[in-house]
Amino acid sequence: MEKLGRGTIKFTNPPKIISHACIVGKKEGEGPMGELFDRIEPDEYFGQDNWEQAESQFQSAAIDLCLEKCGVKNSDLDAAVGGDLLNQCTATSFAVKQLDAPFLGVYGACSTIAESLISASLLVDGGYGDYVLASAGSHFCSAEKQFRTPLEYGSQRPPSAQWTVTGAGAVLLGGTGKVSITAATVGTIVDRGITDANHMGGAMAPAFAHTITAHLRNSGAKPSDYDAVFSGDLGVIGMDITRELLRQEGINLSDNYHDCGEMIFDREKQDVHAGGSGCGCAASVLCAYILPKLESGEWKRVLFTATGALLSPTTVLQGESIPCIAHAVELRSENK
Amino acid sequence: MEKLGRGTIKFTNPPKIISHACIVGKKEGEGPMGELFDRIEPDEYFGQDNWEQAESQFQSAAIDLCLEKCGVKNSDLDAAVGGDLLNQCTATSFAVKQLDAPFLGVYGACSTIAESLISASLLVDGGYGDYVLASAGSHFCSAEKQFRTPLEYGSQRPPSAQWTVTGAGAVLLGGTGKVSITAATVGTIVDRGITDANHMGGAMAPAFAHTITAHLRNSGAKPSDYDAVFSGDLGVIGMDITRELLRQEGINLSDNYHDCGEMIFDREKQDVHAGGSGCGCAASVLCAYILPKLESGEWKRVLFTATGALLSPTTVLQGESIPCIAHAVELRSENK
Repeated sequence: MEKLGRGTIKFTNPPKIISHACIVGKKEGEGPMGELFDRIEPDEYFGQDNWEQAESQFQSAAIDLCLEKCGVKNSDLDAAVGGDLLNQCTATSFAVKQLDAPFLGVYGACSTIAESLISASLLVDGGYGDYVLASAGSHFCSAEKQFRTPLEYGSQRPPSAQWTVTGAGAVLLGGTGKVSITAATVGTIVDRGITDANHMGGAMAPAFAHTITAHLRNSGAKPSDYDAVFSGDLGVIGMDITRELLRQEGINLSDNYHDCGEMIFDREKQDVHAGGSGCGCAASVLCAYILPKLESGEWKRVLFTATGALLSPTTVLQGESIPCIAHAVELRSENK
Repeated sequence: MEKLGRGTIKFTNPPKIISHACIVGKKEGEGPMGELFDRIEPDEYFGQDNWEQAESQFQSAAIDLCLEKCGVKNSDLDAAVGGDLLNQCTATSFAVKQLDAPFLGVYGACSTIAESLISASLLVDGGYGDYVLASAGSHFCSAEKQFRTPLEYGSQRPPSAQWTVTGAGAVLLGGTGKVSITAATVGTIVDRGITDANHMGGAMAPAFAHTITAHLRNSGAKPSDYDAVFSGDLGVIGMDITRELLRQEGINLSDNYHDCGEMIFDREKQDVHAGGSGCGCAASVLCAYILPKLESGEWKRVLFTATGALLSPTTVLQGESIPCIAHAVELRSENK
């Protein structure tokens, strides 16, 4: 690998995406991307006893399907990297323990799938692994229960609130595949003082703008060099703030700018307010929508930048502001 | 880097330890290692409003001291890697945001300093970074409050309980230094069905045994090749179980086997039951005790394997077993 600038890594042996899979819940399946997901699980408990186990099961099932698609066995895995939103990332630990494979747990809130891809890429690029897995997931019910109020309260959600995606994505990296990860930018924590846990888009937008600015500057690229530039889950309010912040930096995102959280639900019909969020949001849109377009060659080059709000229920109650981060992964089609 | 076997990485350009620092609380300062820590902070609040902020402050101060010792500025940092035990790893996010540097958050419970060192080593070995920081910390009060019962309850602790270390350690990796990281083994999650959150040593011992067995097998080393083999925070009960488990594998750990949790407190006088624990335990013993012996050349080769119990308060209440992990880092003295 090579350092292109602070935070930005150019991979010398760009890891390829061997396989990927995503599994989402009923509401996500009813959204505009419904037909694109590998599987829609209608049971919010996914056959488990509680929402936390269900969240784990979504990630576990996505991993199993990802490996099944390419015929790679658990025992072939050189390592797995993953995380989630639950306290102490337990959804991932319980999902991954069945793999019986070397594991690096990461925490980047909703930016986790991008951080997992970066860490997995370090292992593949460096020559350690032939098969390294990256995964992330989230669950609406466990997230609301943990971060906000018990669902049974029926609390009213403000217009800036986002809807945590129930779902998970898994991506297997290695030496062969139709999409490669050519570069990445490790994000810097940015905290502009927002304290409202129902205004994640506004909190995360400056972190996204920071990472995009760094990635473009360090790699010498312009937004128009990409077929698509994705943020993770800024939602519609965060997208507006992002456009304004980047305009101040002289960067104009045009029609090729999208947000996974804005795309995954139909905001008119699905009552999700500002859009989707959660580790499973960017992870499932990556697997269901972005990677297939790169595999087919319809898109040649994409900048995928997942965004995370690094708050906890405790820091919110203590009145702390919300530190945020965004990690960028540059994807290229190998389908010339 | 090179793969020596499943989970085990040999670094081609072994990262050197440029600088390190640790800051601990009053009780740790009164223990047998009291004189070795860089700083003892007598105020459990560290001048902050609450224990969570204090935990963050310990890590922040350790990072600042680590950089100050070697004259490296925040703006010189290529990246920071770190984590802690708090929900959503907020102690680290708040500690690191002042650095204004690219950041990868990791979660490995009490194994975090080893996982941070491994991830930081991937960046340095691969040629991305000249200055990459690894850090971890914990706080007794915030950990008890979060994982067990409020301190005000005065709950009685069983003999197998361990005492979470208040403290943090930070290590700066790069191209120069008297100690190098030559190899590492990424741990595999092992869960032998223990559900008692006051019996961490017993829960973690099988994960430690798994990692040690893999590291020795993959690297072709014997325990006697090391001046010292360290576990993170198994405590005395976990150490006994470890010795027995490894004996069954034909591996005999002799007098060169130590545990950071066993060493950091005086169990006779300090009422800590089975020993110390927490991310700050292995991190501060590494910085205060292990690295100086390697720097002086008294020790030539050490296997440092921090251990983590990946439970959450929720999974414990739900009756789940405790998934555990251990990550190994091989350290060599450059003082020939």
